[in-house]
Amino acid sequence: MLASRLRLVSKRLAFTTLRPIALKTCIKPASAVPNLVRSYSSEKQVSYTVDKFPGYVRHENYKKLSEQDVEYFKSIVGDNGLIYNNEDDLFPYNTDWMHKFRGKSQLVLKPKTTQQVSDIMKYCNQEKLAVVPQGGNTGLVGGSVPVFDEIVLSLQGLNKIRGFDSVSGILTADAGCVLEVLDNWLAEKGYMMPLDLGAKGSCHIGGNIATNAGGLRLLRYGSLHGTVLGLEVVLPDGTVLDNMSTLRKDNTGYDLKQLFIGSEGTIGIITGVSILTPHRSKAVNVALLGLNSFEDVQKAFKQSRIELSEILSAFEFWDINALQMFKKHATPKDVMQNEYPFYVLIETSGSNKDHDDEKLTTYLENMMVDGVAEDGVVAQDETQIRELWSLREGFTEALGKEPAVYKYDISMPVPKLYECVQDMRQHLRDGGVFGNQDSAVTDVVAYGHVGDGNLHLNIAANRLDNQVSALIEPYLFEWVAKHQGSISAEHGLGVAKNEFLGYSKSPVMIKMMKSMKNMLDPNGIMNPYKYLPSN
Amino acid sequence: MLASRLRLVSKRLAFTTLRPIALKTCIKPASAVPNLVRSYSSEKQVSYTVDKFPGYVRHENYKKLSEQDVEYFKSIVGDNGLIYNNEDDLFPYNTDWMHKFRGKSQLVLKPKTTQQVSDIMKYCNQEKLAVVPQGGNTGLVGGSVPVFDEIVLSLQGLNKIRGFDSVSGILTADAGCVLEVLDNWLAEKGYMMPLDLGAKGSCHIGGNIATNAGGLRLLRYGSLHGTVLGLEVVLPDGTVLDNMSTLRKDNTGYDLKQLFIGSEGTIGIITGVSILTPHRSKAVNVALLGLNSFEDVQKAFKQSRIELSEILSAFEFWDINALQMFKKHATPKDVMQNEYPFYVLIETSGSNKDHDDEKLTTYLENMMVDGVAEDGVVAQDETQIRELWSLREGFTEALGKEPAVYKYDISMPVPKLYECVQDMRQHLRDGGVFGNQDSAVTDVVAYGHVGDGNLHLNIAANRLDNQVSALIEPYLFEWVAKHQGSISAEHGLGVAKNEFLGYSKSPVMIKMMKSMKNMLDPNGIMNPYKYLPSN
Repeated sequence: MLASRLRLVSKRLAFTTLRPIALKTCIKPASAVPNLVRSYSSEKQVSYTVDKFPGYVRHENYKKLSEQDVEYFKSIVGDNGLIYNNEDDLFPYNTDWMHKFRGKSQLVLKPKTTQQVSDIMKYCNQEKLAVVPQGGNTGLVGGSVPVFDEIVLSLQGLNKIRGFDSVSGILTADAGCVLEVLDNWLAEKGYMMPLDLGAKGSCHIGGNIATNAGGLRLLRYGSLHGTVLGLEVVLPDGTVLDNMSTLRKDNTGYDLKQLFIGSEGTIGIITGVSILTPHRSKAVNVALLGLNSFEDVQKAFKQSRIELSEILSAFEFWDINALQMFKKHATPKDVMQNEYPFYVLIETSGSNKDHDDEKLTTYLENMMVDGVAEDGVVAQDETQIRELWSLREGFTEALGKEPAVYKYDISMPVPKLYECVQDMRQHLRDGGVFGNQDSAVTDVVAYGHVGDGNLHLNIAANRLDNQVSALIEPYLFEWVAKHQGSISAEHGLGVAKNEFLGYSKSPVMIKMMKSMKNMLDPNGIMNPYKYLPSN
Repeated sequence: MLASRLRLVSKRLAFTTLRPIALKTCIKPASAVPNLVRSYSSEKQVSYTVDKFPGYVRHENYKKLSEQDVEYFKSIVGDNGLIYNNEDDLFPYNTDWMHKFRGKSQLVLKPKTTQQVSDIMKYCNQEKLAVVPQGGNTGLVGGSVPVFDEIVLSLQGLNKIRGFDSVSGILTADAGCVLEVLDNWLAEKGYMMPLDLGAKGSCHIGGNIATNAGGLRLLRYGSLHGTVLGLEVVLPDGTVLDNMSTLRKDNTGYDLKQLFIGSEGTIGIITGVSILTPHRSKAVNVALLGLNSFEDVQKAFKQSRIELSEILSAFEFWDINALQMFKKHATPKDVMQNEYPFYVLIETSGSNKDHDDEKLTTYLENMMVDGVAEDGVVAQDETQIRELWSLREGFTEALGKEPAVYKYDISMPVPKLYECVQDMRQHLRDGGVFGNQDSAVTDVVAYGHVGDGNLHLNIAANRLDNQVSALIEPYLFEWVAKHQGSISAEHGLGVAKNEFLGYSKSPVMIKMMKSMKNMLDPNGIMNPYKYLPSN
């Protein structure tokens, strides 16, 4: 039995016959999977947020934009530095990329310097004009578009690389630099950005930091709270907080920059960034395993931390339901002869290809011999690496073709991760909306970043259904809260999740957050109607 | 030439004849090097801080401790949970381990639960009794001892491990757990703490976090801002802020816990900790190189990041002056035949000994062939690893035997690091206090963590001398500020450096820090006279 398994691995480890998988373009990696808290259907029209989610009331204390205001802003950014009262040109700034949220701003400002951002904010604070900072507008919770007529302050004009120290690998740059541009620039120097995500071609590093983006490299390089060394931030009153440290160690006072990492533009506008970048790995390997249970997924993960240790750079999983959903809408290559209840994708990145190959092969053989994995394949070249990753990345698009999907992005202690999925399936069955041919719910699909304890839970349905909604929420949030999880692992709160914050944070925490907000933005002009619960 | 160098490496790489180096006990690694801002001499008597550094005035708004207060505290912690009015028993809580600072507290409280800490703080806040939180009291800037009669709140009674998730490696523990106890406990599970420092046998994990301890593993595992996942903090008014998350990803609101990392007990008392722990490396190597210039040190560091990459776990340096200082007071083994202007100690930690050996050997040979290093040796076993490390760790004790030492712990962009040392030597020569046989300054000695841009600069003198002090300060702080450095890389501010904060942080930053302090501790009862400048 063991011998035959080992032979199977040996055969599989050498596979070179993967044909390209027929996938449509525009696939976003899992880190960019839309999560709209409630649900979305394949609606194409972009209605206004305030019409879609009734209950929002424009704050009376905000001034309405006047011609004089616009003239003043022109004196700061020039005639070409703004878009005013032009519905078509304003549309992409008023609407998120999923066409889920839409605001009614009449004005987009495009400053080119930190001083211009400061001048704008000083005026807005004096005049009580509400402002939404906007980076690449690739967010998933409506955090970067207005709700009413807030002025959009786009950072796209602040796009210069400020400096790079090739000894320490510390990069300083304007906040509006596109992540991929920075990564490509660093590639020539043998370095890379410590984060990677599907939206990298559009998202700004400032936006990444403002939303504390997680993404695909977090397992290896850690969160932005560790890699961001300094920030330049314009406070709501226009004050420039210069904390552009390029030091790995600096114990002189409260680490104020940390507050802005993940603050979603509610207490200041990030204009400059200092970040520690790792060396680009010379060797990258990707393997795929088929497994029988989530227990085995956990065993495989635990062992990978021991055997692959310092070269492990991703450990992703999906269930058979996710694969079947993919197959329903596309024709992915059958990489393995048989299907398995679970799959894990393992990536290693290191400085020595031979060493990494040896470690990975030994690990994979151990997984087979120990009966943890049932089957396994290893990519032999760049193309096959992309093909294996495209399996992991195809679920989002496939789910998008379902009539309706209830999408969630949660984190939990790893051992509880799949229990949540199984529990939800049973709960929906018990509720009479799942399990029969005419059930509203057609499938419950799970995939995610095991290494980060981050689950993307997707409930596919043949229609949006109030009974289904009522069964899922607040049931799921309560389940997550009961198991010390987070209702938003990486996508943030924005306008979509702010009212649910109480499921992940205590009243004491929320009270302190509100004190912080009030202290830094007493007029409440920064990105209103979002992030914190309204009461 | 190349061939002979290679042979030399080959010979050296196999050295097995290191005899034990005769060192005194109690050596602290560099991370624990005392830095007293001004200076210290070999004074043995422990005078009171307020006598030594005149100018402190007890805040009038603090209540003086009464018998009724003590009775109330007894009702919380019991008769055995406090030390009152017993000079001898109070002494170790009133005095730091270097016997540099000394307070006059009459009362030490030793709560055993978070609730007791909360009850104590609630009362102290109501009564305006000032409090100093104290962990292992291993700090270097007087942050953990009182200045006047502040109550010492010791966390030593909160010393339970709360839980460990062996899949994700996330540990939760009381703040009063000793770092080494946690590390040993994790060792049995194949894990390790992500930080290590000389004081590990005494320091508490809560204190480490409150001071944002750097230490020896920072290069590899990053700062506590990245590895600490959650905190439980008792706020100055007794409110318990429960943020004991065990999640790697959680984007629900401001990351409040970050504020407490490095806050030195000025805005709350850390009572519980959740921290991500890495797997313990199976293979550890240590090598020592001799080099001709700091340019070469930088080249060696840059190349180590490429070739050793994911296994590099320390890159330390010292200059010949440091080695000579060591030899003046001890008899370290001559590891190399010749002396060199600079030395670097390189440590690798990985999961596969053969792979690591190969990477390190290749790297060392490249350094020799490229003429970057002049000589190199590699430890062959645990004993030799300790012997090489003890070279790096011996400078502190040696310097302590000098009549007087002016000590600094600064960080800067790596390329500027040694320029600072050379500039200081010239500056002291120009000032007429260094370079002649009868000069007050006998040597300027440098060592530190190249990988972290962290320099320990030590100016040895045959006496404390006002002319020398005036030449060093504020000259050095200005130099550091001019090069975007930090006047305290890892030791914090405490009572020793708070008045110098302006050299590393802007007035805007300091103002915001003070606002934060006032918001969280409106009565100012937490660790007064420290951390922030008095005006």
